[in-house]
Amino acid sequence: MSKPLILVVNDDGITAPGIKALVEAVKDLGEVVVVAPDSPQSGMGHAITINAPLRLKEVKYFGDIRAFQCSGTPVDCVKLAVDKVLHRHPDLCVSGINHGSNSSINIIYSGTMSAAMEASLEGIPSVGFSLCDYKHEADFEASVFYAQYIAEQILKNGLPKHSLLNVNIPKLALKDIRGIKIGRQALAKWVEEYVERQDPMGRPYYWLTGKFVNYDHGQDTDEWALANGYVSLVPVQHDLTAHHVIPFINENWNFSSVDKGDESIPNVSKERFNL
Amino acid sequence: MSKPLILVVNDDGITAPGIKALVEAVKDLGEVVVVAPDSPQSGMGHAITINAPLRLKEVKYFGDIRAFQCSGTPVDCVKLAVDKVLHRHPDLCVSGINHGSNSSINIIYSGTMSAAMEASLEGIPSVGFSLCDYKHEADFEASVFYAQYIAEQILKNGLPKHSLLNVNIPKLALKDIRGIKIGRQALAKWVEEYVERQDPMGRPYYWLTGKFVNYDHGQDTDEWALANGYVSLVPVQHDLTAHHVIPFINENWNFSSVDKGDESIPNVSKERFNL
Repeated sequence: MSKPLILVVNDDGITAPGIKALVEAVKDLGEVVVVAPDSPQSGMGHAITINAPLRLKEVKYFGDIRAFQCSGTPVDCVKLAVDKVLHRHPDLCVSGINHGSNSSINIIYSGTMSAAMEASLEGIPSVGFSLCDYKHEADFEASVFYAQYIAEQILKNGLPKHSLLNVNIPKLALKDIRGIKIGRQALAKWVEEYVERQDPMGRPYYWLTGKFVNYDHGQDTDEWALANGYVSLVPVQHDLTAHHVIPFINENWNFSSVDKGDESIPNVSKERFNL
Repeated sequence: MSKPLILVVNDDGITAPGIKALVEAVKDLGEVVVVAPDSPQSGMGHAITINAPLRLKEVKYFGDIRAFQCSGTPVDCVKLAVDKVLHRHPDLCVSGINHGSNSSINIIYSGTMSAAMEASLEGIPSVGFSLCDYKHEADFEASVFYAQYIAEQILKNGLPKHSLLNVNIPKLALKDIRGIKIGRQALAKWVEEYVERQDPMGRPYYWLTGKFVNYDHGQDTDEWALANGYVSLVPVQHDLTAHHVIPFINENWNFSSVDKGDESIPNVSKERFNL
């Protein structure tokens, strides 16, 4: 039996300490191939490169492990890896380890999680890891331990189709982490405050700053887990349909006022699905 | 009573015909303010600008309507509009009209829908509109009609918290559209095929191409609605938790093998939430 094929990606760039830690975590679990951005891509969300060509270059940053740097976004890396680099469908994609939290709403801005989601769309069991410590010199010891454990579990058990995992590790020593909590994405947001400055020509420009606000008092969320010393694990899907809103629209919208009377007005009648 | 305040954004850029059509659609429904990218931003997903400052410039592209072009992504436009441009919380955010479909999985790559989602995160009732026609000179007549109708319904009825709408309009004359179908996001994906070329120095580069494949045979999806001559309307949420995967992990993962015996190995025991 051949060894599992494991694709490693990230959004902080191929030279970030986090991806080195992730390669350490999974290198004994199978054949590892790294395809990662050649520069930091934090906050790129699910961006893809449509109107420009991409570059791909083999590098030797990880000893004997095959590794490529890509000029595109984290999602581009996954697409290009699947189409041009990997000789077969991978058994696992691991993304990260991100320098900074991707819990709760951060997931939708996160290049780390978007890369994992893209792999999941490709049918690859997939997980994103993030350490709640922005520093370049962050301590990845606990992250490596939990990343290895979780990668092993996914290789052994698979994941249900159309799902992936968002794993966040608290900024704690390995011995102080209380375990893993499986939960849901907390309801939280960033409150923006743009700092306004003037350039030497007197024209304004704006820097994004903001503070994270957690509105969610539930004890079943990723934010609660992290605040209480656990690794948080949230299963994630790519179907964004808000099924509960369908009856709201069917009941409240006025579909009849427009499509009666005037022959020149086209039908806007509701055609309700049986959901 | 003051008029509703309506924020208009897009991802094709402030000079695209689609945003002009959208301003037409909503200009009689309230006080309209436009904040849109100064260049095309298709495929930007939920990207935000973290490491560079943003520019904002008032322009006169829409007659008397206040309008600003922004150097950032669609999501940046919404954040900056809320923090720096609008004098009060808007009653509605409309995004688009995108040149090209954002149905099914396209939603996660879409700057149009990410802008609408960001507005929804800000607590603004929000909707993204897309016309299934990529052409610059596309006919927006039907799109304007349905955008106006849907914007009116949202202003009148609101939307449930933490939800927004993804509306796609088929490439058909207004009279040939059969109505609106409310449904779910189809399960579909892009199959990538990167075209490989060589630059004058003999080094390879890659262009993204691909074909859209719909795996979903349901008649309750956005793809089905569009293929059958309807406007598709899908309610969308920003909680990505795959709740159904939680029991799968609890039942299948081996949590006990690691946390027994060796005192030096930290606890990875499952701490199951009551979900």
